[in-house]
Amino acid sequence: MSNQQNDPALEQLALRLQDFAQQRDWGQFHSPKNLASALIVEAGELLEHFQWLTEEQSRNLPADKKQAVAYEMADVLLYLVQMATALDVDLIEAANAKIGINGGKYPVENVRGSSRKYDER
Amino acid sequence: MSNQQNDPALEQLALRLQDFAQQRDWGQFHSPKNLASALIVEAGELLEHFQWLTEEQSRNLPADKKQAVAYEMADVLLYLVQMATALDVDLIEAANAKIGINGGKYPVENVRGSSRKYDER
Amino acid sequence: MSNQQNDPALEQLALRLQDFAQQRDWGQFHSPKNLASALIVEAGELLEHFQWLTEEQSRNLPADKKQAVAYEMADVLLYLVQMATALDVDLIEAANAKIGINGGKYPVENVRGSSRKYDER
Amino acid sequence: MSNQQNDPALEQLALRLQDFAQQRDWGQFHSPKNLASALIVEAGELLEHFQWLTEEQSRNLPADKKQAVAYEMADVLLYLVQMATALDVDLIEAANAKIGINGGKYPVENVRGSSRKYDER
Repeated sequence: MSNQQNDPALEQLALRLQDFAQQRDWGQFHSPKNLASALIVEAGELLEHFQWLTEEQSRNLPADKKQAVAYEMADVLLYLVQMATALDVDLIEAANAKIGINGGKYPVENVRGSSRKYDER
Repeated sequence: MSNQQNDPALEQLALRLQDFAQQRDWGQFHSPKNLASALIVEAGELLEHFQWLTEEQSRNLPADKKQAVAYEMADVLLYLVQMATALDVDLIEAANAKIGINGGKYPVENVRGSSRKYDER
Repeated sequence: MSNQQNDPALEQLALRLQDFAQQRDWGQFHSPKNLASALIVEAGELLEHFQWLTEEQSRNLPADKKQAVAYEMADVLLYLVQMATALDVDLIEAANAKIGINGGKYPVENVRGSSRKYDER
Repeated sequence: MSNQQNDPALEQLALRLQDFAQQRDWGQFHSPKNLASALIVEAGELLEHFQWLTEEQSRNLPADKKQAVAYEMADVLLYLVQMATALDVDLIEAANAKIGINGGKYPVENVRGSSRKYDER
């Protein structure tokens, strides 16, 4: 059993990843601390694709690069889902709650069109 | 319209985030390059909670710390979903494809119970 | 001319890196924003060596792994020095000033032997 | 004793940091694994200053932001020096060796003025 009950697609991912790790006896390595490290390592591999591009270039990736980027994004999601299982966090619920919190921190009337305020978020 | 059509919960998140950014006129800042930077910055804030903990401590977080960790995980997911929208990537599809690829890279019979092999993944 | 005048070894590194980039016409890519991205990407490659190790294993690396780690540490330093040149920051001066600031934030009598306080630093 | 013998300024930093940690009994937390995590967390705080800026803006920071950036760069250096002490790595020697290796990987005649080649480095 996993913890993504509110979303069938994430729940299915979580269960596939649990099977994957169990078959390889990798659960011993999957402490939340280690998973958080693995997640940021993947986030670095994702950023690597963009580090020397202009913003404009990053909005217009060639197809092969876009595919490579999609797989790095997938790796980030896979570790995030494994952390969610390990810590019994409902990702969708936490994400929706966080959007609400962010709405309070950045009221539309205060920040609209302002890069200065934006920069300080 | 977003791109997470295969998953209602992610699709709803994507749409909320699009509204959120449009209301604040933030789309101009949300190039894939910048979103990849913001994502790793959040991954750093997530790892910060674990950096001095033992693995054992990370498996047994007190409730207030677990809540803080859940919100950092949410921030990572929120930027990941915004990248997916910007690049028209289906996260669930990419994640399932990537699990298949990883299964080929780490066959059970080669890596089971081996931390050496595991270390090299 | 660089900006690491207070330290001959860093100054020499800075000058070698300026030559290296000029010969390749790479200065156009070396905005502080891009260098900060490149630095964290290298920090990810460094962390990758440790992500599945126990702390104890990380204190006892085999020689070949230690060499690989040393080169990743070098890459972090090389981008840090290039940022220092681009922003005209004296790294040694900033580092010494920061140790002083940290001493004020974590007084010995408050934090000694306390992992709780430590965790909150 | 530290390991930065080839550079008096880094050696002095290393010794100050050893004193700092010993006074607080923090050596127990400073495994290379944890220091690599702390380093990337600081690299994230550094990148945070740049994530929504244009490259042009990042080349022209206001004075107060430049000071904040300098202190984040200092934090990265401080953890790098502590890793060097823990692993007995000579940072300056490793950095100079790495420049040599990079010169072989990116020969001037192959990569000059080419963003494509640059992107693949």
